[in-house]
Amino acid sequence: MSASLGPARVRGFRFAGVAAGIKTKVGALDLGLVVADNPSPAAAVFSANKVKSATIYVTKDHIRAGKLQAVTVNSGCANSFTGRAGIKLAEDSCHAVGVALGISPRLVAPNSTGVIGHLYDLGKYEMGVNAAAAALRETGIEDFTRAIMTTDTRPKMAHAKLRLGGRSVTIAGAAKGVGMIAPNMATMLAYIVTDAAATAAGLRAALKFSVPSTFNAITVDGDMSTNDTVILMAGGAAGNRAMSAADRERFNRAVRDVCAALARELVRDGEGATKLVTIRVRRARSVSDAERCARQIANSPLVKTAFFGCDPNVGRIVMAAGSSGAHVEAEKLTLAIGGVRVASRGALQIAALPAAQKKMREAEFVVDLDLGLGAASATILTCDLSYEYVKINAEYTT
Amino acid sequence: MSASLGPARVRGFRFAGVAAGIKTKVGALDLGLVVADNPSPAAAVFSANKVKSATIYVTKDHIRAGKLQAVTVNSGCANSFTGRAGIKLAEDSCHAVGVALGISPRLVAPNSTGVIGHLYDLGKYEMGVNAAAAALRETGIEDFTRAIMTTDTRPKMAHAKLRLGGRSVTIAGAAKGVGMIAPNMATMLAYIVTDAAATAAGLRAALKFSVPSTFNAITVDGDMSTNDTVILMAGGAAGNRAMSAADRERFNRAVRDVCAALARELVRDGEGATKLVTIRVRRARSVSDAERCARQIANSPLVKTAFFGCDPNVGRIVMAAGSSGAHVEAEKLTLAIGGVRVASRGALQIAALPAAQKKMREAEFVVDLDLGLGAASATILTCDLSYEYVKINAEYTT
Repeated sequence: MSASLGPARVRGFRFAGVAAGIKTKVGALDLGLVVADNPSPAAAVFSANKVKSATIYVTKDHIRAGKLQAVTVNSGCANSFTGRAGIKLAEDSCHAVGVALGISPRLVAPNSTGVIGHLYDLGKYEMGVNAAAAALRETGIEDFTRAIMTTDTRPKMAHAKLRLGGRSVTIAGAAKGVGMIAPNMATMLAYIVTDAAATAAGLRAALKFSVPSTFNAITVDGDMSTNDTVILMAGGAAGNRAMSAADRERFNRAVRDVCAALARELVRDGEGATKLVTIRVRRARSVSDAERCARQIANSPLVKTAFFGCDPNVGRIVMAAGSSGAHVEAEKLTLAIGGVRVASRGALQIAALPAAQKKMREAEFVVDLDLGLGAASATILTCDLSYEYVKINAEYTT
Repeated sequence: MSASLGPARVRGFRFAGVAAGIKTKVGALDLGLVVADNPSPAAAVFSANKVKSATIYVTKDHIRAGKLQAVTVNSGCANSFTGRAGIKLAEDSCHAVGVALGISPRLVAPNSTGVIGHLYDLGKYEMGVNAAAAALRETGIEDFTRAIMTTDTRPKMAHAKLRLGGRSVTIAGAAKGVGMIAPNMATMLAYIVTDAAATAAGLRAALKFSVPSTFNAITVDGDMSTNDTVILMAGGAAGNRAMSAADRERFNRAVRDVCAALARELVRDGEGATKLVTIRVRRARSVSDAERCARQIANSPLVKTAFFGCDPNVGRIVMAAGSSGAHVEAEKLTLAIGGVRVASRGALQIAALPAAQKKMREAEFVVDLDLGLGAASATILTCDLSYEYVKINAEYTT
């Protein structure tokens, strides 16, 4: 089983996306709201950046009790690098949501994305929340997803269904780019809801199982935003009995499938990206070596411009591997691009380069680096570095 | 005293640069030669990349005895990722130089830069060496420097003079880009010669003193080439007496000044660079924190595209600092761009942004980040990320 792209309904959850006037463009959707019928078990993971958005501090505080009932996400303003005023604004925002929905503000996670260093207008936010509360629909996930977009060119949704404890269960997710991992400070945000009955501890375990190989295995420039957040909520409307160990395993896999589908969409819609490239490093001495190596390749501007130019530039890939800090021996490594072996045990295969170049013209290909040293491996998804990336990021203004 | 840009003569050294046919473009200078009148004390530092050019293995082996008499540098072919055949080619090249000059091959350092994975033609190399040997001149340093260029747009030379042990002494250096630190695998190479009398140990100490704050404090994309090499040779023609401790200190400073001038030129001529930016991180908890922070800012594509767009994007700089792994507290940091304070103890200074933007239109400015946490500092030179960078690197073919 794997996840499908696109929207899905999840019993017990309603969604809305409205224009609150936080973005400067008049009428642009900029406030998303997800509401569960009841206080629901929830878990989250957050940016590891030392500079965190005020919204992360407040969300962390609220989720500590293991339950949430509503998540708001505004785009257009990150409420990051805003000090105590930012914390107060996030708390006042939760209060507004609590009033609009008739729930405790402590059941609200107030997320933000957009330009940093600025505060949004609380009055506009309150009016937006009221409008969103009135617009809530079971089928509203696409509106929600559109409202949280910044430089994304399209909304990103995925879902999976499975049988659990005798009942049919749906897991649905919505995410926003990452034009890049740290896109204009625009943040990677993902929200996943399910009608399964689960405990907060079970949800934490599901995220712990899912995030390393999905949201944490994508990159475009190696930075991380101050606002990155993934939230998972379980409403319980499916009425499944408490999960067995086997159920938990299947549930975790399904959550991971949804995360993986969203993560792929994030990279595919990277700022200026024209190609989705999977960097697979195998037979490294250790997992940390394999990851370091894969990340250095995935983040190297020289490698990424070569991807853009469809250039099977073995030198740049080998150089990135060698400079990663991982143990690498040139004479032992074998490299394939799009399944074409371009270096074999340390020797460049010049005759193979035209075939590799042809593969690189496709929208998606795999770079497979076999270090020939051990048994550990790692995989990272990345995209190319194009003129359009420079254009988007040079012309964006604070 | 600080170094001056441009060529200089150094008694006891002759230089040449010729077209050997290693580059595909007919008539392009591609073989440089430096020869000392006598076997001379020498020291070197090399790339830390785990994948090293064959030329580095051979140069390391030859310099172990503490003396060199000749350095050859070919452009157009890096002789890297070439296995045992590459080592043999580098040794055969030393042999050719030895024959042409009537010296031991073990007194020759055979450097290379250019495309990796390929071997150059030894016959062409030999003919080139013979032509270079015939062309050697005391005033030939500019020809030499032009012959070692790859994507450099201009030759980079610097020199300094000082009094040492009662004699006038000259230190002259030549370097090649780095379009970027890892330019098309094109390598950072620098050669510094002096007529001072010095020991190999003294020269090693001078490089150890000079390189960390100069060649190792510049970056454009955080990668490092497989061929990076800095060589320092002292011919002794100045006839100064053995250096006192004070002399050594002044000599080391002068070497560092020459290295610093060359390093600056390397960044200024970065691939597609339109701006030279100094990233200064102050009041960090430790030097390693300060360096990590400065490097993350200096290498962030989001920060570098903002430099290109003259955008005083505080958010991206703060995000990079926070994601560096260094200890950072948002509410303690103060940031100035071009001397304009754009964030003060964690608060964005919106009114100051237009003035900062104006400063960013200049060809050179300083980003000064005060972490407010300790007493350590670090400085890194970087450049912006432009369309031209993508163009150069996407269109370069293996």
